[in-house]
Amino acid sequence: MKSTGVSSNLLTHGCQSRLQPGQSFLRSLPRDWQGIPRDFPPQQTGSTVQSSSQNVSVALGDRSYDILIESGCLPRLATIVEPWGVRFGQGKPSRKAAIISDSNVRYAADIAARSLREAGWACEVIELEPGEPTKRQEVISSIYDRLVAMQADRRTIVIAVGGGVIGDAAGFAAATYNRGLPFVQCPSTLLADVDSSVGGKVGINHPQAKNLIGAFHQPLGVVIDTDLLKTLPDREYRAGLAEVVKYGVILDAEFFTWMESHIAELNARDPQALQHAIARSCRLKADVVEHDEYERTGLRAVLNYGHTFGHAFEALSGYGELLHGEGVAIGMVYASRLAEALGRIDASMTRRQVELLQALHLPTRLPAHLNWPTTEVIGRMRLDKKSEAGKLRFVLPTRMGHVELVDGVDEALVARILNS
Amino acid sequence: MKSTGVSSNLLTHGCQSRLQPGQSFLRSLPRDWQGIPRDFPPQQTGSTVQSSSQNVSVALGDRSYDILIESGCLPRLATIVEPWGVRFGQGKPSRKAAIISDSNVRYAADIAARSLREAGWACEVIELEPGEPTKRQEVISSIYDRLVAMQADRRTIVIAVGGGVIGDAAGFAAATYNRGLPFVQCPSTLLADVDSSVGGKVGINHPQAKNLIGAFHQPLGVVIDTDLLKTLPDREYRAGLAEVVKYGVILDAEFFTWMESHIAELNARDPQALQHAIARSCRLKADVVEHDEYERTGLRAVLNYGHTFGHAFEALSGYGELLHGEGVAIGMVYASRLAEALGRIDASMTRRQVELLQALHLPTRLPAHLNWPTTEVIGRMRLDKKSEAGKLRFVLPTRMGHVELVDGVDEALVARILNS
Repeated sequence: MKSTGVSSNLLTHGCQSRLQPGQSFLRSLPRDWQGIPRDFPPQQTGSTVQSSSQNVSVALGDRSYDILIESGCLPRLATIVEPWGVRFGQGKPSRKAAIISDSNVRYAADIAARSLREAGWACEVIELEPGEPTKRQEVISSIYDRLVAMQADRRTIVIAVGGGVIGDAAGFAAATYNRGLPFVQCPSTLLADVDSSVGGKVGINHPQAKNLIGAFHQPLGVVIDTDLLKTLPDREYRAGLAEVVKYGVILDAEFFTWMESHIAELNARDPQALQHAIARSCRLKADVVEHDEYERTGLRAVLNYGHTFGHAFEALSGYGELLHGEGVAIGMVYASRLAEALGRIDASMTRRQVELLQALHLPTRLPAHLNWPTTEVIGRMRLDKKSEAGKLRFVLPTRMGHVELVDGVDEALVARILNS
Repeated sequence: MKSTGVSSNLLTHGCQSRLQPGQSFLRSLPRDWQGIPRDFPPQQTGSTVQSSSQNVSVALGDRSYDILIESGCLPRLATIVEPWGVRFGQGKPSRKAAIISDSNVRYAADIAARSLREAGWACEVIELEPGEPTKRQEVISSIYDRLVAMQADRRTIVIAVGGGVIGDAAGFAAATYNRGLPFVQCPSTLLADVDSSVGGKVGINHPQAKNLIGAFHQPLGVVIDTDLLKTLPDREYRAGLAEVVKYGVILDAEFFTWMESHIAELNARDPQALQHAIARSCRLKADVVEHDEYERTGLRAVLNYGHTFGHAFEALSGYGELLHGEGVAIGMVYASRLAEALGRIDASMTRRQVELLQALHLPTRLPAHLNWPTTEVIGRMRLDKKSEAGKLRFVLPTRMGHVELVDGVDEALVARILNS
């Protein structure tokens, strides 16, 4: 494993002099926060070194952890996780694990289990149903029962092998069993690689709201074996790419340009291109999370670019008609058009996004049959977590690689964009 | 409100030079940890200033909070909580609260609600059943439903008004709703004042184990109105005193001596004596929690003096025959006798504890009808959370105000103590 330019903590460069240890430089900003600082994130120095393995360090004090990105690393999971367990146990190793997975990626869970067992671990695989309904209380209770039955103690590691649903459910069980078991993520989808594996959000759904019950529970570490993406269905793979594009738009113009010049490689799931796309996305998300771990300053909201529109589209189509990433792809284009109408960007900024998304075979407008009344879409948007007291708020670009949080957008203008 | 000698962070005096910011000086110790450092906690300088209000600061980085101890402060709850809410909201105040309580102390919940409503807050009271069975998943789900119905958002404060059960259940709901709502404790029992209000442990029971499902969720602040103790049943009050005695034995010889010379005041629930006993207990527990927030270094285990015996007695008598504090009182005497038998202390050290506990009308040995076979008691002890791989571990005194964690105690010796 070799550290690359990607893995350095970029943020400390620009802000070191102003920061107290452990203090966020954005802590004092949220009240009238309108955008991330112009120099966020600081540019990388030097070119990106490609290697067979990359490591992204998420710096969160004593909750810091590493994300390893490597083709074919899952079969040696035990050697990766062992030092993390020793660190957690303050010298005493962990030797017991509960692998939580679903039937779609059971083969991967078995690879992980074999690695651990061969290294002498006691290890059980808990297989859940694939799909969103798994994120409910009864399933969490069944995980607790299994953990009790295997006599899990405070050093038993919960290992999620799967997509976002498995990570969220397993992570929530880990967060709440014995006041927090150590937790390792082995994401199996591109979306989970670049989104849910960074930031520690875990949770389940309440009958009335998605992800309402949950916690912040940072993992001990994340192991991304890019080989797992080889079997990912095409539509899911592309939906993950939408989030990768998002990181370029909101935080890194250079990364966006890199994607524009690596379309063929991304479409072909080229291992080197994938590794870079994932590592850079994780690094960018980590930069944000490191400065707003608990979503308090408003900075973490930048990650929701395209999501105010996208969530409304997803919800109205009943979750399933549109994948999350597809909703985000379409939502980014609408948000960009809104920024255009507000005079924040010119048309070329939207055009570049549309062209990149289309080249990656992602939708850039709603299918013709999804033609809800404008008032219904806007009503849904008011329920968005970012909205306050029913007023619409949007994350909008001002230039490639930079976004701002914009309050009090005229609803008539939003309606015009929706109808355009 | 006036700060007293009690409220200064005593620990920083002794260790400042060795500590990095955010680093625990005990972080490296747990592997062969045998006892707390000889200078822990550092002695107070100067005498304790008595005032009408005391404040104990719990220093946990950005999770730091204050414990206010004052007779009759609940009716002005709004003025106390308001600045905490502003700090949490980074300038934006909280104006919505869910007060969670039970029928035993509903009058106190109503006092709290009145204060908030008069200050313009939207506020609901959620009344739960009193008693341990409230700490179950179905009750937590019903709290979630109430929070959804009142449209709780991220700044809605959950306020627990009650004893340990209410604090644990309300705190767990707060920890897991919307990935963590701000939480305020208003404990109504002496045990909750000196134990569960410090340290952030919240949780519920699993059918097979107490407190198995839970989290660390530090409160925004704790408001201890000592007037609530006026209506506390005598037996519960005394059970709380057992934990106060424990703090003296494990951490503060001077405090133990103070109790010996204030028996009449403690038995009469004298407000000044109570305030001092609570503030000193909270300060001592805070000193420990500040250095082992997540129970990893082993330091926090010192708080379990008397608990290895005590928990076994409680469990065998079926929870209810013995109150927790009564089990601890008896357990401390057995643990002290064990330390004597091991040559760690002389008989006077046990005698002082027995005499103080008896003067406070607490039991110092098991009632005659609770005569379980020794093997059964030892079997229970092996299930203790402190035990590792089935070996007995005890927190044992070496002198007044100092304890050590002792491994590998001969079971025959434990049996002899149990039969003595």
